[in-house]
Amino acid sequence: MMKDTTRIDHRKLHEVCLAILMKGGVDKTQAGEVANNLVWSELVGRENFGLLRLPVFLKRVKHGGIKCPCVPRFVECSPGSAILDADAGFGQYAANLAIERAISFAQSTGVGIVGVRNSNFFGTGAYFVHKAAEKGMIGLVMSNSFPKVTAHNGLAPILGTNPFAFGAPLRNGESLMFDMATSALAGSTVREHAARKKPLPEGMAVDANGKPITDPASIGKGALLPAAGAKGYGLSLMVEILAGVLTGAGVSKGVASMYKDVAQPGDNGHFMIVLDIFRFMELELFYDRLEYLTGLVKASSQDGKVLLPGEIRWQNYKNNLSAGIKLGKDTLGVVSKLCAQMGITQNLAPALQDA
Amino acid sequence: MMKDTTRIDHRKLHEVCLAILMKGGVDKTQAGEVANNLVWSELVGRENFGLLRLPVFLKRVKHGGIKCPCVPRFVECSPGSAILDADAGFGQYAANLAIERAISFAQSTGVGIVGVRNSNFFGTGAYFVHKAAEKGMIGLVMSNSFPKVTAHNGLAPILGTNPFAFGAPLRNGESLMFDMATSALAGSTVREHAARKKPLPEGMAVDANGKPITDPASIGKGALLPAAGAKGYGLSLMVEILAGVLTGAGVSKGVASMYKDVAQPGDNGHFMIVLDIFRFMELELFYDRLEYLTGLVKASSQDGKVLLPGEIRWQNYKNNLSAGIKLGKDTLGVVSKLCAQMGITQNLAPALQDA
Repeated sequence: MMKDTTRIDHRKLHEVCLAILMKGGVDKTQAGEVANNLVWSELVGRENFGLLRLPVFLKRVKHGGIKCPCVPRFVECSPGSAILDADAGFGQYAANLAIERAISFAQSTGVGIVGVRNSNFFGTGAYFVHKAAEKGMIGLVMSNSFPKVTAHNGLAPILGTNPFAFGAPLRNGESLMFDMATSALAGSTVREHAARKKPLPEGMAVDANGKPITDPASIGKGALLPAAGAKGYGLSLMVEILAGVLTGAGVSKGVASMYKDVAQPGDNGHFMIVLDIFRFMELELFYDRLEYLTGLVKASSQDGKVLLPGEIRWQNYKNNLSAGIKLGKDTLGVVSKLCAQMGITQNLAPALQDA
Repeated sequence: MMKDTTRIDHRKLHEVCLAILMKGGVDKTQAGEVANNLVWSELVGRENFGLLRLPVFLKRVKHGGIKCPCVPRFVECSPGSAILDADAGFGQYAANLAIERAISFAQSTGVGIVGVRNSNFFGTGAYFVHKAAEKGMIGLVMSNSFPKVTAHNGLAPILGTNPFAFGAPLRNGESLMFDMATSALAGSTVREHAARKKPLPEGMAVDANGKPITDPASIGKGALLPAAGAKGYGLSLMVEILAGVLTGAGVSKGVASMYKDVAQPGDNGHFMIVLDIFRFMELELFYDRLEYLTGLVKASSQDGKVLLPGEIRWQNYKNNLSAGIKLGKDTLGVVSKLCAQMGITQNLAPALQDA
């Protein structure tokens, strides 16, 4: 098989990502974990949570919105729960410490709960729930974010897109995982539409008078709507209460914008619940039972259209792991520009030629 | 003020409800808690989860779908978690035992997790999350149910309406609480539309070929759709995995229909997570911070249209507690018929005159 030279080996991409972060002022400790997170996002095909965000991260590092180095501190709340003060470092780094502590709590007590305050944007929650799944555990992970979503029947943006993620292990080492904005659209989807000058679907956003917006560029003057009205609104408040109110993090307007307030730590909050399956039943029995469920679900349409949450992510992962990652055009532009500016010599040339 | 004689004091309604349940073959232990649950549902104005369900409950009791008496048994999984085998009794009774145990776990370890298997329909999850909120705790409660919802992009009903409830205490003793079906519509809403011969909103249900259904009477030949597509589908699978797969309860088609399979225990599963707030922060500080959030949310529309989850429930509760409960016409019909059949002499006459 001919090697596709426009694809980049994930280890190579990790090297490049690490070099960019470190040249950009990120300490080695954080840079390593941030690179793990961003490259994983590329592997599963979530460009929006991958290296595309490097410029805003570095801007935040430069202006103080993300602290490097940082000294996160855990305060234990009970034998199976803790709050982590992230010291305004990277959300990806803090949330990784948090999920590892929650996993370790769950190993010793069956259940682990960790809340995080004084953090920043953490990327995709799927990364963290899969870390729990890899250990035979079920994970629930959520984060608040700066307000751009209305309350149900509200007009002004008052809640974040407040993502909620869930993951459960599958026998093959993958996981059933989802990571959803509790708003009708994710912020990253709006940015994607804006970049492509593509109108938003109807019924997803409103202006300050409650009139529908479909122009993604106008979203700054309006707000996204919660997913499914009262349901997404309720879920968003739950995320705000667990990740924000209960952890001591910023709440609603108390969370700074990743893009507009580059000098100000986000004060985002995260919240994680991890359950060690074998305390409840043998892991093999859990897999059998879960396969019974997923088998029925997959067979509920004859045309193969029913996918499990995460299914496409794992197809991407396997493909990108073996064939190399094909960076999106925008990401490739961003990465090559940063490499040029920073004098980073790792050779991305074959991939670049395709850009 | 003139007393509204068409309203029934909640204690009186409890007496009547208890008498009906016991005449219908329910043991005193379960009957007391089921009556608490049904009367609470009436107090907060959720007729669909109130005494309206008595006929189907009694039918299930008579034919063996709900076991009376039952001997539920806890198996402890870790110092803060357990599985309850409900022995095919009332879901309302089992879930109450479960939330009380989860609260007690949370009191001793900070976090309580209880899963329930071999149960039946448990009514509204809001009842249970509020029990946790009354103790200064946050509760998450979910239950699986028999399949009447498609997977995202699926055609056949394969998942339950799988409700998810959340509650957090407010300073005034009420709670911010929601209880949502993860499907586009709740089963009870479909029954309500069917009873009123009112068409369903578009985009909520499909027939076996995927064509939209709006006739609630045809839902038996089709299926409900998940709320917000992939989002509700993911949440529904989460509920099925936690409440069904992990507890050892029935999963998907393994859960029997409350209405069609009256001789067969539902084998529904429930799952509860309770967090004791004071382990994370002083309760007064939590209330302050939550009020900051709810204040901003309420103020996000000038017209007073933004309501907190549960707000209308608590208005109903206060009103019904002091003025008496005004039973819905259908419920009044059901209750008076049962009283007449069973020779129950508690005097509902003033309320009945209005029926």
